[in-house]
Amino acid sequence: MLDDMTTATPRGYTATKDQLQSRLKRIEGQVRGVEKMVEEDRYCIDVLTQISAIQAALDKVALGLLDDHARHCMRHGAEEGKADEMTGEMMAAVGRLLRRG
Amino acid sequence: MLDDMTTATPRGYTATKDQLQSRLKRIEGQVRGVEKMVEEDRYCIDVLTQISAIQAALDKVALGLLDDHARHCMRHGAEEGKADEMTGEMMAAVGRLLRRG
Amino acid sequence: MLDDMTTATPRGYTATKDQLQSRLKRIEGQVRGVEKMVEEDRYCIDVLTQISAIQAALDKVALGLLDDHARHCMRHGAEEGKADEMTGEMMAAVGRLLRRG
Amino acid sequence: MLDDMTTATPRGYTATKDQLQSRLKRIEGQVRGVEKMVEEDRYCIDVLTQISAIQAALDKVALGLLDDHARHCMRHGAEEGKADEMTGEMMAAVGRLLRRG
Repeated sequence: MLDDMTTATPRGYTATKDQLQSRLKRIEGQVRGVEKMVEEDRYCIDVLTQISAIQAALDKVALGLLDDHARHCMRHGAEEGKADEMTGEMMAAVGRLLRRG
Repeated sequence: MLDDMTTATPRGYTATKDQLQSRLKRIEGQVRGVEKMVEEDRYCIDVLTQISAIQAALDKVALGLLDDHARHCMRHGAEEGKADEMTGEMMAAVGRLLRRG
Repeated sequence: MLDDMTTATPRGYTATKDQLQSRLKRIEGQVRGVEKMVEEDRYCIDVLTQISAIQAALDKVALGLLDDHARHCMRHGAEEGKADEMTGEMMAAVGRLLRRG
Repeated sequence: MLDDMTTATPRGYTATKDQLQSRLKRIEGQVRGVEKMVEEDRYCIDVLTQISAIQAALDKVALGLLDDHARHCMRHGAEEGKADEMTGEMMAAVGRLLRRG
């Protein structure tokens, strides 16, 4: 019951697999759009604006994945005795996102 | 026993309160250093390098706090019935760090 | 002569149109790779690592475009009387990259 | 005359030395505030929000310095025959800001 509600009303960065996939499809299209802009020698500042939009969209996908991972850790990490390992991995992933690679 | 070992050998971004405080003291000193550089009209690129170093140090403090929060959530979030709320808060905090404010 | 040398030995973030295009093609492939990973329910942390790699690659493209813009501004901005406008645009673009969108 | 106008109507990220200094003073105070929050064991998420605010403020200082550098380069870089060197330095600085150190 509670799970159904959670699924029905995702809050914050929570994303379903379908949502992640359609966001990634859109990002793929945005990258192709940037390729075309470079091909056509479009004004550099406009291309940069598009790249920033892709970065923001990728951040949103990353936060969706991270949210899912954190919720899974909460529910099962402790009982599986892997809480520390999973937290460590998660922090390393956040660190890489902050440093951008 | 296991907890003792974990405490004794913090891995990754785990930081004690003492470590966080001494890192923040150092960051405060770095900010004062940048003030002095601007005061003395030092070469802009050198000032920017110092600012990047402060940002990296702040990221490390943020990751230390986040790591502590995540570990606490893992241990107590589920039993307190606040796992979802805590994860949501954590993701919002990561989102703000990525967008830098 | 000088131009030839510049083209022959690009330093730092300088990138030719060809280089930008092949980098973007590679990024497009990386995004498709992430789509496949999500499709196959691959381990979240591995997907996040890939996303960070894409972000880093996009940053490199952005810096290449910015570098080109800055060099153009230097050479022609002043004489065109658009130095201030172009610098303002460039800073706004850097601001968006820092805030990621 | 032109300089006066520029000083009188700063646009975008342009900042005077006074503005940079007062911003840095404020940032120093914010860092001390975070030290106090950690000392008092304040809620981790609130501390992270403060850290994000400091990072945003530092980005603003960095963009102000970069803007000043870029305008200087525009005006004098070409005539000094250092346009390429200065652009390279500037891009490296932006790269470090994006990677946060």
